[in-house]
Amino acid sequence: MPYQFEDLKNSCHAEWHAYIQHSFVQQLADASLAPEAFQHYLKQDYLFLIQFARAYGLAVYKSPTLSDLKQAKEGLKAIVDIELDLHIRYCEEWGISEQELANLPEARATLAYTRYVLDTGNRGDLLDLHVALSPCMVGYGEIATWLNSRAETLRGGSNPYDAWIAMYESAEFQDAMQSEIRWLNERLADVSSARFDQLSRIFSDATRLEIDFWQMGLTQSD
Amino acid sequence: MPYQFEDLKNSCHAEWHAYIQHSFVQQLADASLAPEAFQHYLKQDYLFLIQFARAYGLAVYKSPTLSDLKQAKEGLKAIVDIELDLHIRYCEEWGISEQELANLPEARATLAYTRYVLDTGNRGDLLDLHVALSPCMVGYGEIATWLNSRAETLRGGSNPYDAWIAMYESAEFQDAMQSEIRWLNERLADVSSARFDQLSRIFSDATRLEIDFWQMGLTQSD
Amino acid sequence: MPYQFEDLKNSCHAEWHAYIQHSFVQQLADASLAPEAFQHYLKQDYLFLIQFARAYGLAVYKSPTLSDLKQAKEGLKAIVDIELDLHIRYCEEWGISEQELANLPEARATLAYTRYVLDTGNRGDLLDLHVALSPCMVGYGEIATWLNSRAETLRGGSNPYDAWIAMYESAEFQDAMQSEIRWLNERLADVSSARFDQLSRIFSDATRLEIDFWQMGLTQSD
Amino acid sequence: MPYQFEDLKNSCHAEWHAYIQHSFVQQLADASLAPEAFQHYLKQDYLFLIQFARAYGLAVYKSPTLSDLKQAKEGLKAIVDIELDLHIRYCEEWGISEQELANLPEARATLAYTRYVLDTGNRGDLLDLHVALSPCMVGYGEIATWLNSRAETLRGGSNPYDAWIAMYESAEFQDAMQSEIRWLNERLADVSSARFDQLSRIFSDATRLEIDFWQMGLTQSD
Repeated sequence: MPYQFEDLKNSCHAEWHAYIQHSFVQQLADASLAPEAFQHYLKQDYLFLIQFARAYGLAVYKSPTLSDLKQAKEGLKAIVDIELDLHIRYCEEWGISEQELANLPEARATLAYTRYVLDTGNRGDLLDLHVALSPCMVGYGEIATWLNSRAETLRGGSNPYDAWIAMYESAEFQDAMQSEIRWLNERLADVSSARFDQLSRIFSDATRLEIDFWQMGLTQSD
Repeated sequence: MPYQFEDLKNSCHAEWHAYIQHSFVQQLADASLAPEAFQHYLKQDYLFLIQFARAYGLAVYKSPTLSDLKQAKEGLKAIVDIELDLHIRYCEEWGISEQELANLPEARATLAYTRYVLDTGNRGDLLDLHVALSPCMVGYGEIATWLNSRAETLRGGSNPYDAWIAMYESAEFQDAMQSEIRWLNERLADVSSARFDQLSRIFSDATRLEIDFWQMGLTQSD
Repeated sequence: MPYQFEDLKNSCHAEWHAYIQHSFVQQLADASLAPEAFQHYLKQDYLFLIQFARAYGLAVYKSPTLSDLKQAKEGLKAIVDIELDLHIRYCEEWGISEQELANLPEARATLAYTRYVLDTGNRGDLLDLHVALSPCMVGYGEIATWLNSRAETLRGGSNPYDAWIAMYESAEFQDAMQSEIRWLNERLADVSSARFDQLSRIFSDATRLEIDFWQMGLTQSD
Repeated sequence: MPYQFEDLKNSCHAEWHAYIQHSFVQQLADASLAPEAFQHYLKQDYLFLIQFARAYGLAVYKSPTLSDLKQAKEGLKAIVDIELDLHIRYCEEWGISEQELANLPEARATLAYTRYVLDTGNRGDLLDLHVALSPCMVGYGEIATWLNSRAETLRGGSNPYDAWIAMYESAEFQDAMQSEIRWLNERLADVSSARFDQLSRIFSDATRLEIDFWQMGLTQSD
């Protein structure tokens, strides 16, 4: 029976749940989140994006086929040419200038997750790298869906964080997420159980570090 | 005026101070540290050592000269052939079996510091890697010296943590520390101020992540 | 006295000369080159481009600043989105199908130069990587200029290889070359003589491997 | 049906044959090899060993388990603490001083094979690295066995190259070779056919570059 992405989630069900349903996103959805917590998150998410661009550069380097290389290049372009600019403009709406973003120190939770992903990618192969990236790629899309399914979630102009949910529920993001899941499913179908155990450990560690990223936002920690 | 290792410490004086004089080591020195905190630290330090062995493997790979390569190989041998075994035996004295060590999950603070070092080494050159390692290499020796200078520090059989201080005050460790400082001083003498600024950022980030490692021990966090 | 890119060329004058004025390019310029030799070169140059894309991915990963990262991303985009397609279409004009390109084995000279660049980049920092890439980036532009200065060079429809010279004499390529030289000059201005000696060795090795690449084309070797 | 190391050899039978039975080793065995060719080979083999030490450093870094890490560390120790010294002494017997070894430029064939191995290791995982190393590890042992099976092979004092054959027929080398084959068989048993195709390409490229290494010795090429 071939493995699937779903099996990675099931291998660390408690952590995945704690990540998807973290207080940070619940408070964001019911508009009770402190603006300072959201601003802290936004700043660190900018630094996170830069490290994710490095991860996509690494994916280009590690690609075993031209098709993988082109896909990694597209991901890199999306981050650097589109997402970084969107993020900078969104930060401006929240009173955070590009100048401020350029001089921020990285919080521990940012260092932890991003460097874990990058080292995992260097140590292993392209699949290890994608598995380490997947809690971010897939989780944000799943969070948007989960929030939309809850009565407590406030949408529209009465929620200052509405645009955040809108971004991750968008067809564009959901399509990218599905495409990542397909890529992973194709590779996971091919791995042995020993290899799957390695990948589960990576997925579970990366998910724990995502939980810490929410927590860092919530508690505004450095 | 050539840069020296001392300049790295001065560039993040507050962080360095917070690391060297952390409550964890103060409590360890006056014997007030909870045994569970020390055991938690010992377990994570074992996982830390394995990642440090990986860092020395990386240093072998990145060495620009045969002399650097041989030095990195000696460091690797010391960790794998000596320190790991010492650590396993020391853990046994504290009631932690080798079997338990082999199955431990890495705490966040362990993931954070070790993967930061490894990514920094991959991203930059051998000097970047050494600077990222130096808060550990040099800090532990400095901590032992500082603890010995304090009236509050309890030495001998009345302090269950005495062997820990003894290890890092030992001539062997202090010599290794001095040799690392000399290696760094030789390279730092040669760098421009722009390069020094890069290295200071690395040193300061690594020091912050060392602080978190003590804090992880103190609070027994995963 | 700060170092400059010119100093790298002067440090291996004989090799640089042998590369720029190689029989392959002389024959290409006076139209005496065997079409089979040119076709062999074109095929291997396609495989070379794919590895160069990997090198730019690596440059993204290794970038110490966002500005370096964006520049590396632009280089990657140029290779994957523009140059690869141009190359495929140019190969078609010479009777080489995309299908054939997709199944080619890499010649030794292709493996040698490209893997040397990639390992040099991984081992050292972004400057090491750029220096290893520079014989290609700068040399092709210099070759076009040198060929245009020679009476023996045949331009226009009577030379089947005219389009090759035209590509590298183009303002677009010459601008990219000048921009690479400026980037290198800024960094080289900052290095010590010990560091310059390391970089000279890299530059000289990379230049030797470029000579072999021409020779591989000329002798149609695997 | 699980894959085995034997399948890698069969996937490039012609290349493997051309490597194991290369004129260089045939001439070495019947004592007809020019001493200058052997000396050229010995010099480059010294530079090769240094790069192989880097490859074992990389294997330490990439090891997914402590057991793999320890094995890679042992390989590194064997190269740096034993083989390099043996090689230096053997070179002295052939009139090549350690001073001369320290200042040699790397021949193209040396650059090509070693950097291919190192980039393959960085790009993929520990298995990719081992497969790229295996033509060297296994081939030399197989060559000694094959030479000993031939009537043309001259053993003892009448063959100035006798010590070379003796080294690779030794129980120590043959055991190391068998242990490498076992390690590979365990991992290959677990791979899919798509993965095996990737590994075959690596094995075949590495074997071609080994052929070039013999050819470089035979023709005394830079």
